[in-house]
Amino acid sequence: MTADLDALKTRLAEHNDLVMAAALLRWDQATYMPEGGNAARGRQLATLERIAHDRLTDPGLARLLDKVTPAAEREGPDSFLGRLVKVARTDVDRAAKVPAAFVSAFANHRAETYDAWTRARPANDFAAVAGLLAKTVEMSREYAGFFAPYEHVADPLIELADPGALTSSLRALFAELRRELVPLVDAITRAAPADDACLHQAFPEAEQLAFGLQMAQQFGYDLARGRQDKTHHPFMTKFSLGDVRITTRVRTNDLACALFSTLHEAGHAMYEQGIDRAYEATPLAEGTSYGLHESQSRLWENLVGRSLPFWKGAYPRLQAAFPAQLGGVPLDAFYRAINRVERSLVRTDSDEVTYSLHVIMRFDFELELLEGKLAAKDLPEAWRARAQADLGATPPTDVDGCLQDVHWFDGFVGGAFHTYALGNLMSAQFFDAAVAAHPELPAEIEAGRFQTLRTWLVDNVHVHGRARSADEIVRAATGQPLSTAPYLGYLRRKYGALYGL
Amino acid sequence: MTADLDALKTRLAEHNDLVMAAALLRWDQATYMPEGGNAARGRQLATLERIAHDRLTDPGLARLLDKVTPAAEREGPDSFLGRLVKVARTDVDRAAKVPAAFVSAFANHRAETYDAWTRARPANDFAAVAGLLAKTVEMSREYAGFFAPYEHVADPLIELADPGALTSSLRALFAELRRELVPLVDAITRAAPADDACLHQAFPEAEQLAFGLQMAQQFGYDLARGRQDKTHHPFMTKFSLGDVRITTRVRTNDLACALFSTLHEAGHAMYEQGIDRAYEATPLAEGTSYGLHESQSRLWENLVGRSLPFWKGAYPRLQAAFPAQLGGVPLDAFYRAINRVERSLVRTDSDEVTYSLHVIMRFDFELELLEGKLAAKDLPEAWRARAQADLGATPPTDVDGCLQDVHWFDGFVGGAFHTYALGNLMSAQFFDAAVAAHPELPAEIEAGRFQTLRTWLVDNVHVHGRARSADEIVRAATGQPLSTAPYLGYLRRKYGALYGL
Repeated sequence: MTADLDALKTRLAEHNDLVMAAALLRWDQATYMPEGGNAARGRQLATLERIAHDRLTDPGLARLLDKVTPAAEREGPDSFLGRLVKVARTDVDRAAKVPAAFVSAFANHRAETYDAWTRARPANDFAAVAGLLAKTVEMSREYAGFFAPYEHVADPLIELADPGALTSSLRALFAELRRELVPLVDAITRAAPADDACLHQAFPEAEQLAFGLQMAQQFGYDLARGRQDKTHHPFMTKFSLGDVRITTRVRTNDLACALFSTLHEAGHAMYEQGIDRAYEATPLAEGTSYGLHESQSRLWENLVGRSLPFWKGAYPRLQAAFPAQLGGVPLDAFYRAINRVERSLVRTDSDEVTYSLHVIMRFDFELELLEGKLAAKDLPEAWRARAQADLGATPPTDVDGCLQDVHWFDGFVGGAFHTYALGNLMSAQFFDAAVAAHPELPAEIEAGRFQTLRTWLVDNVHVHGRARSADEIVRAATGQPLSTAPYLGYLRRKYGALYGL
Repeated sequence: MTADLDALKTRLAEHNDLVMAAALLRWDQATYMPEGGNAARGRQLATLERIAHDRLTDPGLARLLDKVTPAAEREGPDSFLGRLVKVARTDVDRAAKVPAAFVSAFANHRAETYDAWTRARPANDFAAVAGLLAKTVEMSREYAGFFAPYEHVADPLIELADPGALTSSLRALFAELRRELVPLVDAITRAAPADDACLHQAFPEAEQLAFGLQMAQQFGYDLARGRQDKTHHPFMTKFSLGDVRITTRVRTNDLACALFSTLHEAGHAMYEQGIDRAYEATPLAEGTSYGLHESQSRLWENLVGRSLPFWKGAYPRLQAAFPAQLGGVPLDAFYRAINRVERSLVRTDSDEVTYSLHVIMRFDFELELLEGKLAAKDLPEAWRARAQADLGATPPTDVDGCLQDVHWFDGFVGGAFHTYALGNLMSAQFFDAAVAAHPELPAEIEAGRFQTLRTWLVDNVHVHGRARSADEIVRAATGQPLSTAPYLGYLRRKYGALYGL
């Protein structure tokens, strides 16, 4: 058995090495690669991904999994071996179910669609991509079909991001959330709007980067196992548990952009850095779901990073970093500025309160598209109606409407957006549980001490990697299944106070 | 045949992709990787290299080579196909001849030796590595044995770096070179020494980097297909013909360090950037030998970069970049400073005239070690004697003697040093030929125009990649086989004038 287990681990590590190498090639492409490297880089990535896929579907790997299964069963489902075999088999089975011909056909379609979108978006030309999007819907259904039977056609797509989550339960959660958020946005936007002009002065890039990274480090992002670079779109990536990197972008006329993106990505990175090092080079060494990942980034970005206690402590330091710009701006005005709520059209620029409405709207469209109730060509019209109903604003163009997000033009339709709302819900539920366990947390955060919070997150969430499902982690860490109550409670308390509701 | 050729190219491209991906992992390790990434990175590199080796020794590749060989023969040895098949077969045969057990045993021994050297060097403790070095000599002989029969045991090791070069011919060239250089160094060091204090003022890093890179671009280094980053040791690496990068290191109290390292590495990079783009992703898309590579870096660093015509044009711009430091230093004094010759102990700090003597000494030791005429344990003693005889200086410690270079502690003994002297010889022979073809070159260099020289190098040297051997390239470009005359003539003219000999 030991020899089989060693052989299994060697194969899994080899697969992991190929995936991590591909991630580095992608990071380099986004950070430092000169433009001349583009053509070859695409081919190199395809080669690494093909070999990684071949290794995962190699019958030898499946045989080794069979061989160690009796031992895994003896040691029990909660043992390291039990979890390893379960998660590895999930990956192997999934890779095996999708025919190579589909993978390659979808890769081609995806590249064509993405390319068309990059031209259609600036031209506000939805018609140019409507046909491609219709085909994406069809291929998304086809992909789901490989995993039949299912309860809902979106389930296998959701499973890719959030294993265990079902369309039916997400639908129920999101309907509840929407029912409460629409009137909340309405009430807030009737109140006097917050003024965020103080964030839109000239803020030099180097100082912005230094301040954000210093905050991230104070939260607990370990730069001996990470670093920050600049990219067009911020992201987190990792090449091992000892090398978890973030990127950010800086706008010199918008202090919030780089700062909150750094705190957000640092939240993702701290999750990966907190995973049990014993899982290194196995499929367990990874965040367990996109939703859980998003809960960690949102928690540090919003529940901590946009909170009053945090800025009571940190604002004097921010003022010291930007004395000319913020020296005369009181804490209260700054706090209101970074929490300004408005009837927004663009998801990525939207605030905490409207954000989930943007997401739920997309989730509902995904289901309607997959169910055949909405045709791709009718999306712009449906988008305008729903935006008006939920957000109280109608996009004047599709650029601010159904063309704004890359997701459906660079991947499947289905499973692309729910994660963000899930992450919001989890973030507040975790934070409440941490405060219940450690009532001193708000005072510590005000004092610039984050160790208690981070340790609670590591012990209850991060350390498990993929050895526990998101649902298991939420229940064990918070004592409850996932619900909308903590997040809605958080929003009502915070924004009720801010807008005097 | 077309299908076979396509299949062959696909396999070669896949091998190339893996090798290039590994190169990026190594570049990242030297530039940006946080220290926490080290352990996993070693394993990831080993995985990529093992898979690359497996692909190269896959019987399917050898069969495809056999299948296209008749067509290659029909098209002739100078056709693209003829060259491709020849070079690919060289790589395949070489990979096949070395048993996997040896590769893995040597990798382990090499890692152990390197690790021991990193501790023995600062401690000046040669005894701690003598046994490991003796084993390296033995394993170097064993490696050579896989390629028996040979004329000299060092030949297969030299072949790794400089295909076609033989110990016997290198020995003859180097003996001639040494015979002339020893008295030249002697005569120069009797003359009044040059003063290089002007180079050892405070030079801010950013300005140094900017000036060096600007010069490299003016030479012709294309930043749309390259970039420069900082590393502990400067190097050139590439990930495709469209992505050829250099690194440098900066000492803020030594203007020469970053500047000449940038010009040197840019010379390497321009060679790779000049290779026929049609060779991309084949084994032809690579410099043809280490010696030829070194000739290109030395040519730009020394024959251009340390020449009087170049600085007649460029020195005012350097003064403008560093007015406080160089405003009062005349061109002549600066030119003498960057060409200061001294009886040096350390190869990497040595000047153009003594450099080859450092290298020839190591080459001779390699042969004696491999021939069993010198025992590893007796190296320190032999080193001291030879340094005194050739350079007129005895290293007070082994740190300045036989422990100074990493090469023998991170690879084979044999084939490690000859390349530098070969590159020196070639650099002058190419430059003379370019000037013979374009007598206006020195005037152009003074005017800051490098296009004619670069075009001559691209057309006569770079474009061929591995499709021509170094020997073929030297003969075709210069009309002569390689000889010591051009390089010795260059040194005598330049340093005769500088030191009034």
